[in-house]
Amino acid sequence: MGRALAIGVDLGATTVKAGVVNKKGKVLANYSIETLADKGPAAVIRQISFTIRQLLDQSKGTQIDGIGIGAPGVVALDGGVVQYPPNFSAWTEVSVGEEIEKEFHVGVNVENDANVAALAEARFGAGKSENDFLFVIWGTGVGGGIILNGEIYRGPHGGAGEIGHVTIDHNGPPCGCGNRGCVEAYVGQRYLSQRTRERLKPLLEAAERNISKETPSKIVQLINGNLDLIEPRIISMAARQEDRLAREILEEAGTLLGVAIASVLNVLDLRLVIVGGGISAADAFVFEAITRSVRSRVLKSGKEHIRVAPAQLGNMAGIMGAASLVWMDEGKKHAKLHR
Amino acid sequence: MGRALAIGVDLGATTVKAGVVNKKGKVLANYSIETLADKGPAAVIRQISFTIRQLLDQSKGTQIDGIGIGAPGVVALDGGVVQYPPNFSAWTEVSVGEEIEKEFHVGVNVENDANVAALAEARFGAGKSENDFLFVIWGTGVGGGIILNGEIYRGPHGGAGEIGHVTIDHNGPPCGCGNRGCVEAYVGQRYLSQRTRERLKPLLEAAERNISKETPSKIVQLINGNLDLIEPRIISMAARQEDRLAREILEEAGTLLGVAIASVLNVLDLRLVIVGGGISAADAFVFEAITRSVRSRVLKSGKEHIRVAPAQLGNMAGIMGAASLVWMDEGKKHAKLHR
Repeated sequence: MGRALAIGVDLGATTVKAGVVNKKGKVLANYSIETLADKGPAAVIRQISFTIRQLLDQSKGTQIDGIGIGAPGVVALDGGVVQYPPNFSAWTEVSVGEEIEKEFHVGVNVENDANVAALAEARFGAGKSENDFLFVIWGTGVGGGIILNGEIYRGPHGGAGEIGHVTIDHNGPPCGCGNRGCVEAYVGQRYLSQRTRERLKPLLEAAERNISKETPSKIVQLINGNLDLIEPRIISMAARQEDRLAREILEEAGTLLGVAIASVLNVLDLRLVIVGGGISAADAFVFEAITRSVRSRVLKSGKEHIRVAPAQLGNMAGIMGAASLVWMDEGKKHAKLHR
Repeated sequence: MGRALAIGVDLGATTVKAGVVNKKGKVLANYSIETLADKGPAAVIRQISFTIRQLLDQSKGTQIDGIGIGAPGVVALDGGVVQYPPNFSAWTEVSVGEEIEKEFHVGVNVENDANVAALAEARFGAGKSENDFLFVIWGTGVGGGIILNGEIYRGPHGGAGEIGHVTIDHNGPPCGCGNRGCVEAYVGQRYLSQRTRERLKPLLEAAERNISKETPSKIVQLINGNLDLIEPRIISMAARQEDRLAREILEEAGTLLGVAIASVLNVLDLRLVIVGGGISAADAFVFEAITRSVRSRVLKSGKEHIRVAPAQLGNMAGIMGAASLVWMDEGKKHAKLHR
């Protein structure tokens, strides 16, 4: 039991990361390589195989219980089929699980990447001592996973957890998904940057007209006046330097994210939210804004018990969660090919 | 097995309804009485007991497998404790399950009334051939229940399914729950009536100034010009008489309800919504409005498969669902006192 090991693969649009992981979630070895997502499915499968092969070669003689893969897009319940992952060329539906299994002759589990990260936090991270929580990834977009009774809630078609597409204003701005007023259309990377540009423009123009030497926000210094370079990382950096506008923008974003989270907590009767992803890695004041917003909005019965916690596993969550798919209880609703 | 019977009790704020129900959901006998909710918990318990006693006396000699009770408010997982049911005087937390059990010496299951109605639709109604759906009750307020894998999803604290308190506009009007912009604050009975009054007022004033004989809406005729009498039943009635304003108001309400439903379907990966309750009993065009709204807003993967269906069981859903609690699988997360 102490020697039980699995390989976890974190398939991203730019990088394939994989690691040998023990049952405590410790990553004993890891390897990463380009995904080549623009070269089509066959190339991507080759990259995954190569990565796994590297790890197996390095750790010769050790027994591997199986391979777990976290992938973007919807993952079908049977056969480990990855459907329409965003930013992958020529990819409709590909049986990643079966392909990898054919090569390595070991059980392969495939799961959606947000679900995998949620599972990692449930097993090894901020949700270790909790059975039920909502996991939110706040980065390029807003994604998530739902952990009920310690396990991923996938939904009947494997598509659950789309917290980014909870409406917070039915008359709001259009979202990439076709709806309007989704929380992602306010706080996703692209939208947040856009809104920051819009708020900076009049300030910059005013500053120019007054021939003022004073810049209206530290953000402008950080991007050397090139508004195209604005991204959440920059806004966070400025906020850390006590820039008022940057703090305002991130606090407002946290508040809006809290609106969507509160809706989900009310429907699912949950009290813990774990937030990870690039933007949330900002400072404590963003978590405070999310918490205030959620508390002010959830129903009375849960109000006092609400907790918004930062994800603990960072970069390695994908590998750890994917590996732990191998040790899921039998009979659970996961894309499991072999027992 | 063919003779298996249970008693189902539907505890409402004004009436206690109970029935003897077989495993197919057929109500073989039923009885109802005032709740006396203003007289405090002891009086309510007496009314429930009396109702059950009536049914037992009528059906002497038949074996009863147990008693199921659907109650408003949050129901605690253990002991059948009903917490803070709205419109019940002097009621904090009362162990309804234990009280009834003490008297009748038979297993008692207690569950939230919206969950019970959802279960009834799952077992005997519009959800009979479906494993997973969202159930919405649209009446005085907006409530609901979530059926996953054929069973009620209660949430870790028994409070799941609060679809009425999903935000549809974070800057929206205040809701009774303390939040703002909840869907209930748009389409719940009180709010809908209020909005109708607001739309009628200027029309009435204009009509008066012009000394016009033509009334601006059939609603005004139905209430003899007394705006205080406006309620959804009246609006539905006017809509059925092809009144334009009434139709507009109900269509808009259906559209707004659809916004909240779409958020929940996206998060839970569900495709079927069953809508019951007084307001939804209106005509097909309201269901069409809900369906259009939900379809236009859910994520692509589910869009074509979305179905919004009317609840089928009407008034008897509470009794049928409550009785069927008795035959829940053992070990499920219900407030079960005895096996």
